[in-house]
Amino acid sequence: MSPPVKFRIGLCGLGTVGQGVWKHFAAKRAELESRLGVKLEIARVAVRDRRKRRGVNIPADRICGDAIAVATDPNLDIICELIGGTTLARDVTLAALACGKVVVSANKALICAHGAEIFETARRHGGHFLFEASVAGGIPLIKALREGLVANRFPLIYGILNGTCNYILTKMEEQDAPYTAVLGEAKRLGYAEADESLDVQGWDTAHKAAVLTFLAHGTWVKPEQMIVEGIDRITPEDFKNAAALGYGIKLLAVIARDFTTGELSVRVHPTLLPESHVVAKVSGVFNAVSVQGDVAGTTLYIGRGAGQDATASAVISDLVDAVGLLKNDRRAFITARKGSAPARPERACRLAPPEHIRGRYYLRLTVRDEPGVLAQIATAMADQQVSIASVIQRAQEPAGEASLVLTTHQSDERAIRATLARLARLRCLLGKPLLLRIGDFSE
Amino acid sequence: MSPPVKFRIGLCGLGTVGQGVWKHFAAKRAELESRLGVKLEIARVAVRDRRKRRGVNIPADRICGDAIAVATDPNLDIICELIGGTTLARDVTLAALACGKVVVSANKALICAHGAEIFETARRHGGHFLFEASVAGGIPLIKALREGLVANRFPLIYGILNGTCNYILTKMEEQDAPYTAVLGEAKRLGYAEADESLDVQGWDTAHKAAVLTFLAHGTWVKPEQMIVEGIDRITPEDFKNAAALGYGIKLLAVIARDFTTGELSVRVHPTLLPESHVVAKVSGVFNAVSVQGDVAGTTLYIGRGAGQDATASAVISDLVDAVGLLKNDRRAFITARKGSAPARPERACRLAPPEHIRGRYYLRLTVRDEPGVLAQIATAMADQQVSIASVIQRAQEPAGEASLVLTTHQSDERAIRATLARLARLRCLLGKPLLLRIGDFSE
Repeated sequence: MSPPVKFRIGLCGLGTVGQGVWKHFAAKRAELESRLGVKLEIARVAVRDRRKRRGVNIPADRICGDAIAVATDPNLDIICELIGGTTLARDVTLAALACGKVVVSANKALICAHGAEIFETARRHGGHFLFEASVAGGIPLIKALREGLVANRFPLIYGILNGTCNYILTKMEEQDAPYTAVLGEAKRLGYAEADESLDVQGWDTAHKAAVLTFLAHGTWVKPEQMIVEGIDRITPEDFKNAAALGYGIKLLAVIARDFTTGELSVRVHPTLLPESHVVAKVSGVFNAVSVQGDVAGTTLYIGRGAGQDATASAVISDLVDAVGLLKNDRRAFITARKGSAPARPERACRLAPPEHIRGRYYLRLTVRDEPGVLAQIATAMADQQVSIASVIQRAQEPAGEASLVLTTHQSDERAIRATLARLARLRCLLGKPLLLRIGDFSE
Repeated sequence: MSPPVKFRIGLCGLGTVGQGVWKHFAAKRAELESRLGVKLEIARVAVRDRRKRRGVNIPADRICGDAIAVATDPNLDIICELIGGTTLARDVTLAALACGKVVVSANKALICAHGAEIFETARRHGGHFLFEASVAGGIPLIKALREGLVANRFPLIYGILNGTCNYILTKMEEQDAPYTAVLGEAKRLGYAEADESLDVQGWDTAHKAAVLTFLAHGTWVKPEQMIVEGIDRITPEDFKNAAALGYGIKLLAVIARDFTTGELSVRVHPTLLPESHVVAKVSGVFNAVSVQGDVAGTTLYIGRGAGQDATASAVISDLVDAVGLLKNDRRAFITARKGSAPARPERACRLAPPEHIRGRYYLRLTVRDEPGVLAQIATAMADQQVSIASVIQRAQEPAGEASLVLTTHQSDERAIRATLARLARLRCLLGKPLLLRIGDFSE
């Protein structure tokens, strides 16, 4: 027998995730080699600062400072892009794909911004792009959508995709603590970035929603085309109000497709979920994704959405898939199933207009505590055909102010936005209303 | 360009699952062909009774009565074995694999009984055996263990693997109804078989546990080597006792491996799970499997475990994987990763002796309501070093009897079995004690 083929991997980026990949790859390498019947080696590592001390021990002759040189090195078969961001990461990814290599990526922001270009480059040059680590970390969700559930269309996918936000919301509820205090604690514990805005304003979740939308529906939706709302205006009072109504609060991505009309909506917003709903029980840094398939029914996936180890687990599974692709490619065969092409052929698919995005709403207003206020607000809502389902009114500090929490019956995004615009013109309203959506998901 | 390659599928068995595969394959065929770049056809269908009327419309010339003829038909590339049982199904599977075909199976009983022979036959003849549908129906769990979590070892896998049992337990708890009444209802609704014993006594769960054990640890454990206990002796009183202690009751498979000692334990038993545990919330016919990976951490998978549609979804995903394998095989390349060989090389792995299987226990005894009974029982337990954590005693009908519910601190299977043997000799004990395990899983 001929000796086993050797596949060489280049690692670009040696931050938290890169170090995790190095460490776990080293620990599992012999076992993976035995299962795959090949030899594997992380042969080159590109870092920004060669002198920086790190937690892993990498031979000096494998380290270099030029990520593009690694991406295009003809001795390397697979490139892991773990640099992050959308500038050098994009150059590295495109350069490696243009050489026909397999690129493994955890970079949802890059995929969201340049996915169409990346997949087209892969297709044109016979490269492959694998991205299991980009969404829901340690949960093999991309593989489930792409392969395990290949028989299905997906009318509805929703879930918790950002562990930082889920940690903050969980702690706010558990400790009855304000947002800023919990955010500070999350930063100290390393659960939130120094600049938290990408997470807490919903953009990281939106990037991941874009990747899932592409996988499920073969189309790219930009975050600017989605409804994206963050968690930074939620207060402990909202948790109490939600609990009084039987709900918890989670930041969810919701990807809904009507296969009759072809209309698609993608949105990211804090959502009231019934306390009995399994997703409402998912706490801390965990992610949870509910996938409704038209054949398999609803399947739910829960696990760590980020972190060094969970992300490394996903990257290494992609490395193994990359070896499978390359073994086939060496026989001049390019699979259409993974990596090279969109998961789903782009179908007649258009974004739903706001009036077709229906739901129930929770609205918290701070108002002057004076006669006639509820009448004015109720009139403003009635004028937009938004029907009130429940009201909680409480006096609050300072004196003369009141908190008014309204929930609505079924309405739609056009009507609720028009209502908000109308409310903004009322003299009795103090400050900007907080709008939350109510999630009526049957598990 | 040359016209697309055509792959021909033979369906053996046209019961509930077979009809589901035919129906959903017909509906999704064009889309699958477009994604795979090949043509697909279910070219022959083997049935036991050709005259039986069925819910699907299959051209008469594709139907035959000889499953072995279909399994060995040189025009067919992929054989779906959906006959069930372990006799004809085994012959069909081995015959097709001996021809180097890909066999797709939903048959956990067959895999459990003859898995080693099946995989060896596949290996010897270059065939492949795929079995996503055999465990947890619509949930792509096999793929997750085998591919998505390839970087992981699995110290602990546990979960609900039998929808019938979970349906019965859920209804017993919700309706405060006895086992026999709920079983009768489940049979009327089609959620339980006419002969329910395979499900309710835990054997179906044990078959699935054997498949998961093989995937996770590369070794075959027979149900006779496991602790296997069913749900048929649980009463509404047990649910009330469990609730008073803060628990629900689920039938769980538990596969635990100590990677330091190499010891493995596989068991199936009704388990007290803390009410706050996500798996305790999984109700009705749903399955839930928690997988602890040494790299990814804990991931949890929930979905329909059986039924025509969920199983068809899994079978079709295997058909797509089969096409991937065959496309490669046509280039004379046999992958080591899927289908042909054990997922994991068999490692030094031995079954844990009872004294190493530790846990806490719930014991319900029916005793004479007379002085000194608790003392006798407590002494019997103390003699085996089984320490009592809590006691609930209640008078019960008929007069002169009492129900005694004991929970223990940490003990082990040897000690608790010795305790049961000792208790059986006590005159004050009326009837066989019910032993349940307490599940101390940190999610």
